[in-house]
Parts: sequence; C-alpha cells; structure tokens
Amino acid sequence: MRPSNRAPAQIRPVTITRQYTAHAEGSVLVEFGDTKVLCTASFTEGVPRFLKGQGQGWVTAEYGMLPRSTHSRMDREAARGKQSGRTQEIQRLIGRALRAAVDMKLLGENTIVIDCDVIQADGGTRTASITGACVALADALNWARAKGIIKANPLKFLIAAVSVGVYEGEPIADLEYVEDSAAETDMNVVMTETGKLIEVQGTAEGEPFSHEELLAMLELAKHGIREIIDVQKAALS
Amino acid sequence: MRPSNRAPAQIRPVTITRQYTAHAEGSVLVEFGDTKVLCTASFTEGVPRFLKGQGQGWVTAEYGMLPRSTHSRMDREAARGKQSGRTQEIQRLIGRALRAAVDMKLLGENTIVIDCDVIQADGGTRTASITGACVALADALNWARAKGIIKANPLKFLIAAVSVGVYEGEPIADLEYVEDSAAETDMNVVMTETGKLIEVQGTAEGEPFSHEELLAMLELAKHGIREIIDVQKAALS
Amino acid sequence: MRPSNRAPAQIRPVTITRQYTAHAEGSVLVEFGDTKVLCTASFTEGVPRFLKGQGQGWVTAEYGMLPRSTHSRMDREAARGKQSGRTQEIQRLIGRALRAAVDMKLLGENTIVIDCDVIQADGGTRTASITGACVALADALNWARAKGIIKANPLKFLIAAVSVGVYEGEPIADLEYVEDSAAETDMNVVMTETGKLIEVQGTAEGEPFSHEELLAMLELAKHGIREIIDVQKAALS
Amino acid sequence: MRPSNRAPAQIRPVTITRQYTAHAEGSVLVEFGDTKVLCTASFTEGVPRFLKGQGQGWVTAEYGMLPRSTHSRMDREAARGKQSGRTQEIQRLIGRALRAAVDMKLLGENTIVIDCDVIQADGGTRTASITGACVALADALNWARAKGIIKANPLKFLIAAVSVGVYEGEPIADLEYVEDSAAETDMNVVMTETGKLIEVQGTAEGEPFSHEELLAMLELAKHGIREIIDVQKAALS
Amino acid sequence: MRPSNRAPAQIRPVTITRQYTAHAEGSVLVEFGDTKVLCTASFTEGVPRFLKGQGQGWVTAEYGMLPRSTHSRMDREAARGKQSGRTQEIQRLIGRALRAAVDMKLLGENTIVIDCDVIQADGGTRTASITGACVALADALNWARAKGIIKANPLKFLIAAVSVGVYEGEPIADLEYVEDSAAETDMNVVMTETGKLIEVQGTAEGEPFSHEELLAMLELAKHGIREIIDVQKAALS
Amino acid sequence: MRPSNRAPAQIRPVTITRQYTAHAEGSVLVEFGDTKVLCTASFTEGVPRFLKGQGQGWVTAEYGMLPRSTHSRMDREAARGKQSGRTQEIQRLIGRALRAAVDMKLLGENTIVIDCDVIQADGGTRTASITGACVALADALNWARAKGIIKANPLKFLIAAVSVGVYEGEPIADLEYVEDSAAETDMNVVMTETGKLIEVQGTAEGEPFSHEELLAMLELAKHGIREIIDVQKAALS
Repeated sequence: MRPSNRAPAQIRPVTITRQYTAHAEGSVLVEFGDTKVLCTASFTEGVPRFLKGQGQGWVTAEYGMLPRSTHSRMDREAARGKQSGRTQEIQRLIGRALRAAVDMKLLGENTIVIDCDVIQADGGTRTASITGACVALADALNWARAKGIIKANPLKFLIAAVSVGVYEGEPIADLEYVEDSAAETDMNVVMTETGKLIEVQGTAEGEPFSHEELLAMLELAKHGIREIIDVQKAALS
Repeated sequence: MRPSNRAPAQIRPVTITRQYTAHAEGSVLVEFGDTKVLCTASFTEGVPRFLKGQGQGWVTAEYGMLPRSTHSRMDREAARGKQSGRTQEIQRLIGRALRAAVDMKLLGENTIVIDCDVIQADGGTRTASITGACVALADALNWARAKGIIKANPLKFLIAAVSVGVYEGEPIADLEYVEDSAAETDMNVVMTETGKLIEVQGTAEGEPFSHEELLAMLELAKHGIREIIDVQKAALS
Repeated sequence: MRPSNRAPAQIRPVTITRQYTAHAEGSVLVEFGDTKVLCTASFTEGVPRFLKGQGQGWVTAEYGMLPRSTHSRMDREAARGKQSGRTQEIQRLIGRALRAAVDMKLLGENTIVIDCDVIQADGGTRTASITGACVALADALNWARAKGIIKANPLKFLIAAVSVGVYEGEPIADLEYVEDSAAETDMNVVMTETGKLIEVQGTAEGEPFSHEELLAMLELAKHGIREIIDVQKAALS
Repeated sequence: MRPSNRAPAQIRPVTITRQYTAHAEGSVLVEFGDTKVLCTASFTEGVPRFLKGQGQGWVTAEYGMLPRSTHSRMDREAARGKQSGRTQEIQRLIGRALRAAVDMKLLGENTIVIDCDVIQADGGTRTASITGACVALADALNWARAKGIIKANPLKFLIAAVSVGVYEGEPIADLEYVEDSAAETDMNVVMTETGKLIEVQGTAEGEPFSHEELLAMLELAKHGIREIIDVQKAALS
Repeated sequence: MRPSNRAPAQIRPVTITRQYTAHAEGSVLVEFGDTKVLCTASFTEGVPRFLKGQGQGWVTAEYGMLPRSTHSRMDREAARGKQSGRTQEIQRLIGRALRAAVDMKLLGENTIVIDCDVIQADGGTRTASITGACVALADALNWARAKGIIKANPLKFLIAAVSVGVYEGEPIADLEYVEDSAAETDMNVVMTETGKLIEVQGTAEGEPFSHEELLAMLELAKHGIREIIDVQKAALS
Repeated sequence: MRPSNRAPAQIRPVTITRQYTAHAEGSVLVEFGDTKVLCTASFTEGVPRFLKGQGQGWVTAEYGMLPRSTHSRMDREAARGKQSGRTQEIQRLIGRALRAAVDMKLLGENTIVIDCDVIQADGGTRTASITGACVALADALNWARAKGIIKANPLKFLIAAVSVGVYEGEPIADLEYVEDSAAETDMNVVMTETGKLIEVQGTAEGEPFSHEELLAMLELAKHGIREIIDVQKAALS
C-alpha cells in the first residue's frame, strides 16, 4: 500500500500553469502533487563562444532549490559558494534532455537558458523540472517565432519525465518523498511524445534490481509519461 | 505624472498570503504590485556558536533573486559561486531590521532563519522582503509558542518598510522599477507599528538632496508604512 | 565496422594490476585497452560526522583526470578551483555503485575512500574506474580483516561496469573514444557478479532510442560485464 | 559623559596628510583621532567594458582592514578567500558617495580606483575613508589635469562624512569604538561642501529611534562635516 | 654603477619604528630605503588543533601588499578571492624563518601570528618583512613575559634578511626595484645574529650562476645582515 | 647510518621512462627510488596574452600529488577548491627552473605546459619532477622540430635537481621521506649539465646551518646532479 493510497501505476495530479511570471519568454509553474517547480525559459540572441559561427543554437539549464522548499532548511548554495554535486547532476540532465528535443540548426545562433527553481519539494523535482521546462521552452520558441527571430519551429517533439521505483518490493510510478527515501530502486525516465527514450537512469539504492524489475519500471514510466504529455498538450493548446 | 498614474503618496496594492508553501514554520508570499517575494521563516532549536550559553536567540536573513525574476536574466549566484555585494547588503539589512523587532531573551536559545526569494521583481524588493518576512517571522514564533518551545511572544512590534524617492523633482512613495531606475534620490525606510524608525537609508543617485527633500520623503514613508502595517495586521488576524 | 575492427559485442582487453602503488591499502591499475585508471582504496577508522554512533561504515569516491590524460590538455581542476559537473557526476556514480556492494554493518565504523585517477583516457573511464575500484576495495577490506580491524568480509559481491551504445545504427560494447564521441546513444551499466543491476544510465546523445535498442544494449552489457568479472576474479585469486 | 570627555557635538581631531605614499596619483593618510586610514586614488586611462564608447568615466572603491588594525586580530580576507558582507557594504558606500561628486563626462573615458585601507581602527572607519578618499581623488584629478589627460576639473564639490549616534540617550557626533559598540542608534551621513546630502544611513542597533532623534543627529552631522570640510580645504590649499 | 649610486655592498638606510600602531602586542614599521612594511605580531593563548596538548607553541605569518604599494595598481587579493602563489611563497618563508628563531617549548601553548603588510614597495619586501617581523616578535614576547603568560624568553636569537644579486655582472647587496627587475640572479638570505644561516634562496632569473658568484653573494649578504642586526638591536634597546 | 644503508653521497637509483603515456608531446615517468612522478609536456601554439606579439614563447608548470601517493591520504586539492601553498611553491620552482633552460626566442610564440603528477611519494618529489620534466620538455621540443613548428632547438642545456640535507649531523644526498622528515637542514639544488646553478634553496628545519655545511651540501649536490644528468642523457639517446 502506498502512503498516499495511490495505485502502483497511478501518478500524482499534474498541473501546468503557463505565464506564471511576467518577464521570461516562457514561464511555467509545474506541479506534481505537492512538488512545485518554477521553470523559465530565457531566449537570447547569440551563442556561447564555442559555437560561434556554426549556424546553430544552444540550450542549457540551471537548477536550484529554495532553501526552505524542503522539510528541514537546506543551505543556500549561493551563500555556501558552490552548487552541490546533486544540483550539477540534475541541471546537466535537464539540459541534455531538452537539447535532444531541439533542432539546433532551426534555432539558429540563439540561446535558451532554462531555470528550474523548486518552490516546494515532495519527490520527483527533476522529472517535474523536465516536464515543466519543455512547456516553457515551447513558449519561448513560439515567442521567438512570433517576433520573427526564428522561422520554423525547432521543437522536434514534446518530452516529459517521471520517476519510477521499487518500493516494498513492488514497482510504482511517480514517487513522492516518503516513497523515494525508502525505495530500493529509483529510476528516472525521459521520453518523447513519440514514445522513444531520451534518458533512462536507474539506481539501486538498497538491493540490486533484476532485469524483470527494470522492464516493469519502464512499463510504468511509459504509461505515466503518456499521461503527463497529455497534460502538456492541453496546457499548450 | 507617475508612469503608473499613481498619486505621489500612493503605494501599490500590497498583498500578503500566509502558508504559501508547506514546510516552513512561517511562509508568506508578499506582493507590492508586480513585485513578488516568497519569505519563509525557519525555526530551529539552538544558536550559532558565538551565542552559546547566553540564554538568548538569533535571527538572521538571506536574500536571493530567481535568475529570471528580472527583465533580462541575471546570473545565478550559486553558479557564479558568490553572492553579489548588493545581495549581501540587502540580506544584512533584512536581518538587522528583524532583529530590532525581536526580544532575544524571550526567544531563548533558538534561531530563526529568514529566506527572502524574489519570484518577480518590479522595484522595492528589499522593502517587500522586510514586510513579508515580518509576517513569516510572526507565524514562526506563533508556531513555536503553540509547540511550547517558547513561552512569551518575542515579537516586540510589527515592522514594515517602503521605498521613497525623488522622481522628476517630486517626492514619491513605493517606486516601481521604471521610477527607481530614473530617480534622483532613493530612500528605504523601515518603521515599527508604533511609528519609530528602525532604518533610514537615503542615497543620492543623481543630484545631492536637501534637508527639505529628506523630510518630505520621510513623511511619505510614514504614511505608506502605516498602510502596509494595516495589511500585515489584517493578514495576521 | 568499428574503428578498432572489434566485433559489436567485443570488449577491449581488460588488465588489472594489483599493488600498483605502495602506500594504499588497495591499489589497482585497471586498463580497458588504452584507457588506464589508477584506483586506490584508503581504509581509515572512524566515519563522517553524520554516521557517528550508528555502528556502520561508509564508502565514498573521488575521481580526477590528469591534465594530459586526454588528447588535448584539460585544465587542472585543482588550479581552476573547482571540480566540473562531469567530475562530480562520475564520482557520485562510483561511490554509489560501490556502496551497493558493501554491507555497512559488517564494515563497522570505518571509512573507505576510493580515488580513481585517469592516467590515460580512451573512452569508458567511469566504467573502468568502477571495475578497478571494486578490486582495490576488496584488497582494502582484506587488509582490514588481516589486521583484525573487521571480522567478516563486508563485500557482498563483486561489481563491474561497461559502456554500451548505438554507433552507426548498431549496438556495440565498450566504446573507445572515437566511437563514444560519435555514438547516437551511450549507456553505462553496473552489474553484480550475480547478474543483478546496480546502475543503468542511458542517454540519447543524438536521436532518441527505442525500447528494443535499450534491450539490445543491456544484453551486450551483461555479456561484457561477465567477462570483466572473470578478469577481476583472476586478478584476486 | 563621553568616555573621551568630548562634548556631544565635538568631533575628534581630524588630520589629513597628502602624498603619504609615493606611487599613487593621490595618496592620503586620514586620521579621525586614533582611526587611521590610508586612502589612495589610482588614475588609469580607459573604462570598464560596460561603459566603453560612452564618453564618460568611472570611479570605484575598495576597502580593507589590516588584520591587526583592530583590538583583536581579524582574519585576513585575502586568506579566507572572500570579502565580508560588511567590507562590501562599505566599499559600495564609498564608491557611490564619490561618484556623486564627480562629473563623469568631464572625467572622460578614464577610471579612478580608490583604495581605503585601515591602518588602525577606533570607530568611524567608513566616514574617515570617504573623507580621505575625497582628497586623494582631488589630487588624482589634479595630476591628470597637470598631465593634460583631462581638461576641466570633474570634481563638482568636496564631500565628507561623519558618524553620529544616540549614546546613553543623547545624540553625539563622531563615535569612537567604545561609543559605537554601545550606541542605541548609529547613523552615517555624507554631505557636500554646499550642505546637501549624499547619503544618510541610520540604523537602530538597540531601540528604534524617533523622528526627533533623527533630526538631532542630522544637525550634529551637518556641524561636524562642515568642520571636516574645512580641514580638507586647508590640506588641499 | 648602481642606479642609486650605492657601492655594490652598500645597503639602503634601514629604519625600524616600534609601536607604530596601537593594538598589536608587537607593531613595527620597517623601512629599507623606500620600501616600507608594517609588521605586527599578535599574541594569543592556545595553539592550532594539530599542536594541542603537546606543550609547545606556534608562530605563523601572513603577507600582503596594499593594492597601490606598487608603481601600477595591483588587484586586491581579497577581492580576487585568492592569494597569489608569490604571496603564499613569501608568507611561508617568513613563518619558517621566524619559527627557526623561537624555542617552541618556552613559548608554551601560545600562538603568535605575524602580519607583514607592504605600505610602499621598492624591492626587497620579503627581506624587510622578516627583519621587521623579528622585532615585532621580540616585542610580543616581551609583552607576554611582562604579563606573566610566559616565563623565559623563547627568542633564541635575532634574525634578519637581505637580498643580494648579480646585476650587470657584478654582485650587489639589497636590490631596489629597478635593480631587482634587471638582475641576472636574485638571492634572499636569512641569517641569525650569530652568523648562522636560516634560509638561502638563490634563483637564476636570466643566466645560470657560478659557484663563485654564489660565494660572492653570500659574502655580501653576511655583511649586510650584520649591519641590519645592529639596527634591530639599537631599536630594541 | 642512513636508514637505507646508502653512503652519504649516494643517490637512489634514478630511472627515466619516456613515452609513458600516449597523448602528450613529451611524457616521462621519473623514479628516484620509490618516488615516482609522471611528467608531461604539452606543446601548444600561441602564448598567454601578456606575451602576444613579442616573438617569444612561454614555459609554465603545474604540480599535483595523487591523494594516496603518500602514507596517509591527503585531501584532493580539486575537491578542496584550492592548491596549497606548498603546491604553488613547487610548481613555481619547476616552471622557473625550466624557463632558465629554454631560449624563448627560438621557441617562438608557442607555449609548453609541464604537468608533474606524483604517483608515489618517498621524498624528493620536486627534484624528481624537475629532472623528469626536463626530459619531457626535450621530447616536446623535438616533436615540434620534427613537425616543423620550430626550427632550431630552444633547449640551451639539460637541467636536473637533487635534494641534499644535514641528517644526524652529516651532509647527505637525495633524502628519502624518513630522512627528509628528520633532517636539520634541507636544500634543493637545480643545476645545468654545464655545472652552473639555476636554483639553490636551503632551509634550516631545525638548527641554523653554517657556511661550511652549506658548502658541503653544495658539493654533494653537484656530484649527484652529474649522475642524474647522465641518466637523462642515456634516456634521450
């Protein structure tokens, strides 16, 4: 039995609010149950030096948690003077996943910076971030097309993500914090709306997992992500 | 004429939403017009080393801006590896102001950390932060009293803050961004509900200001802060 | 056709040299073809503060590349003053994988620090690191048993790792640098000698990958890791 | 009664020694009683990148305390690897105050860097710094005019500063260390030789202060600064 | 011919002013011609952790240059966030030299921190620092004896230092800046009042030097240091 | 009697292995007994900004110790976020010594970066580093000549280094760790194949040393370095 009484395959309610803040070209509040992440996409002309003159664009991402987004207060990374390994790992994942969804030639020599800032954390912040960031990215690209900065839409497909895991011996989808911290195995899956895989990251937190468990988790992830992509599509229409 | 058509003494609509996030002992979203700041107060038992064994508590504050809270994206301080001088100046101001409102003996050997994170910026983020943080602080203190951790209420009085300035030759209250960036003089005032001053910081951005202008700005500040304290009281009741 | 003329499932020659340096309790040079990593395991009594008094041990890992282990010289991280996100991601992976192989209760309040330093890089440094580090860890644990510091062997099973990927449309095992930099998909798999999974990290570098490609890569990984574990066993016997 | 037997409005003896060191274009040792600060002004052609091509100059300031300028030794900020919030707040204040005194168009595309290094501290180091720095600035500007680098004098007016406060219930001027650390209220005022205000920073250290106390402190500040500006003028003539 | 018309063996006028600042237990301004360094010795009870309980003391040193002590302004190390390699090398040399002059058992579990801050630089700042720091150290030790904190005098002997070099083919003593920057060889020598060597650091800046040149430089150093030790003795008497 | 039964003047076996790793233009493993250092020389076209357009090259060096090259594990400098003073001192010494051996005009506007990474430490890592780096440098210069990037050979002469010291009252050559940590005096000497001195750094670790001891140590250094240069020549032929 899951603490929230959810069925094993049942994801939390997913809400996507566009134009959540005023200044960013794309600004989305994404909620997976009690996990709330503000995702902004900032469009700027020009590319980092290593890409100059190649006729292609760039997408990168940064991630942060507000100090009291968590049960007990975390140190502010800006005050400590460095980002944790976990933060860097997550923002590298977000950036990599979104780059896989963008045709960099169609983007032209423009850069999109994604910022995912966790307002409230209850498990699954990285998968919520990818999900919300994809919608913010779509908005920023539409903004640039409306402005005439880019012509064709560089977004190849929507992507979304969900966490799956093995909890008390059973595969479950979209782990909340109490499940996550007790899970034997934790896996994050990023998938396209066409059902292809972008990223699969499975980790044995306690016991090693079997091939069969991996397949069961993947199956849950596919179903969950399809539902989440429907929410993205509804929000964007 | 002010860009927003406000009268010189007219402050923006001030909104205070308590329990904005779930985990913090005090959590407040404060809005001064389009400026939105999330203020949390985290209560922890124990004090920093320099205060141990003295039977008194501590209140400190940290401040940050989400990278895209502003018109163009700012660098993330956690990624740059240090807080700017402006950030440090503001968080020192917030902490100092709130400490003036707390009886540290009544707080006992407990610490409250205030986090003010700007979600959306349109001028006056430091005065909004102080205003919201005071309500979050009140909630955290009430939480600790309800828990029996502290007995009497250490909050001596409410405090609130507003910015005033000289804009196109005329003193005005509660500057929004376009006014702030064009003002000749900028002053931040922190005041108690009893009408006493906690902090006065006036700066000639362009031309030096006269004693008379200082008095006129102070007058506007007093009126504005009184209105803001009414909003605080309504929110807390 | 692979640049090295290897068959798709063929891994590079794997060599494990124990007692490569004199001071560490475990010291292994691991070679996957031209990739050479020095893995040391340092045994110290005591645990980090967050574990004190819980009767269990700790295993952690650090990773580095010598500046000229690569084709063109990389900046020295010590001189730049920080470890890159990639470095942190890799050392977190190594530590997590090895912790899954150790019974922390049997380790008692002792700490093992793994250092993986890349002497020469030709792809697959993280999988070579995990493979070599597991042998260094085994040696350090044996050292501690011989000294009487620990009684039973905390090593639950050997673990090893290999990279797999999709290169020119075909799944291949143990990518060397030229393959890695051109692969459409890259996956790192960590497995136990009992055939269970510890970590699966698959990333679409170019095109998203299908469920079938994932399964094919997993199959290659299993075969490759079994061979590598045989080399570990031979080295340890 | 003040510890030094001074009358409430009485400032300490102020001494200004020009050409205190050999290399800087302006070099001043300023003393407010036992507080001694070395202020240098370094003139360089060119401006920071954000000002290039705008036909105007820049003035900036840095502040530091020698580790044993204080009663007990302070950590050296260069060794700790960062400047404290207090240091940054003070150097921002010094730079802002001096920029208000300079016509940036007349300065042309040239930069003046002010360094204020406290040799010995006894309260009021920031106000002494501003006072001494203004004279060093004047010397550096005169040096540039003598060299023909700039034509007209960009210095609009002299500025000076003094601290005032409420100590044992009474407003006093130019607080020394023992007064400063016991004051209920502390205010720093920067004023021009024409009697206009550049900066007013009043802080309730203990009890909030009244409007009347603010006015009384301002009055003391004006008198004190007038005396200090006389010392500046005598030094410069 | 030396730029200053000095004879090859002739050192610059050396001046030592004790009690130059008020707070430090030892405070000395040392001048070697136009090179001026403020050396303070701070006495504190207790020792760093690695020495606790061993019944002996510790002496350490830090070095810094005021940003405009030099011809053109140097970056402030506190603002850059780290000390240069040159700074660290010099402060390690100063600390090591002074430790050689102190009987750590007689010092007891007390620490002396030496700060050498260059007010004005004209070559030889490290040798002037050692020379002045030794006198400041003597004063701090005398202060501690007068206070009864230590019984016997831990200072085994006075030490002093001078730079020597080969300039235009000829060995010379006490190089000033213009000589130093053109010298083929540069050597710093630290010696005791008993004529024994504490440190010899000779470097070929241009051409390698011969054994004979080394001997000639050593000879000059001995004569120079003897004169400087006479100045130390006069200052201390 | 030396712990290793060596005669006072006897150096440890010195081994130089060229082409130790594959990517660097020069790559040398140097061994002085149990001390093993990997020295690479990376040749790149272009020079640092401060040398641009002057028609001359640059040689610089970095030094590091693998965390478990020592008896007990040292902190990884990349993880701590800064290089120690010792590390910086050593890499400055290595760079300075090698620059003295290179004709920068003949090198042209090219840069060589030397990396010395200690694989296993048993005393004398800095002198082994200089010795090995000189051979790696020679290889990198030969590589550049073979490529036609430079015409004439910029290497003016071979250089090598050895440590000498006073141990139990007697001068000895090439100290290993147990000798080094107990020596009264420690001296590092860098010499050319023509018998001239590049660097002499003698330090009294315990008691000051006499002029005669200095001469005796220099004599041992000369003999030792001559032997080491023979090994360099044999390796290069």
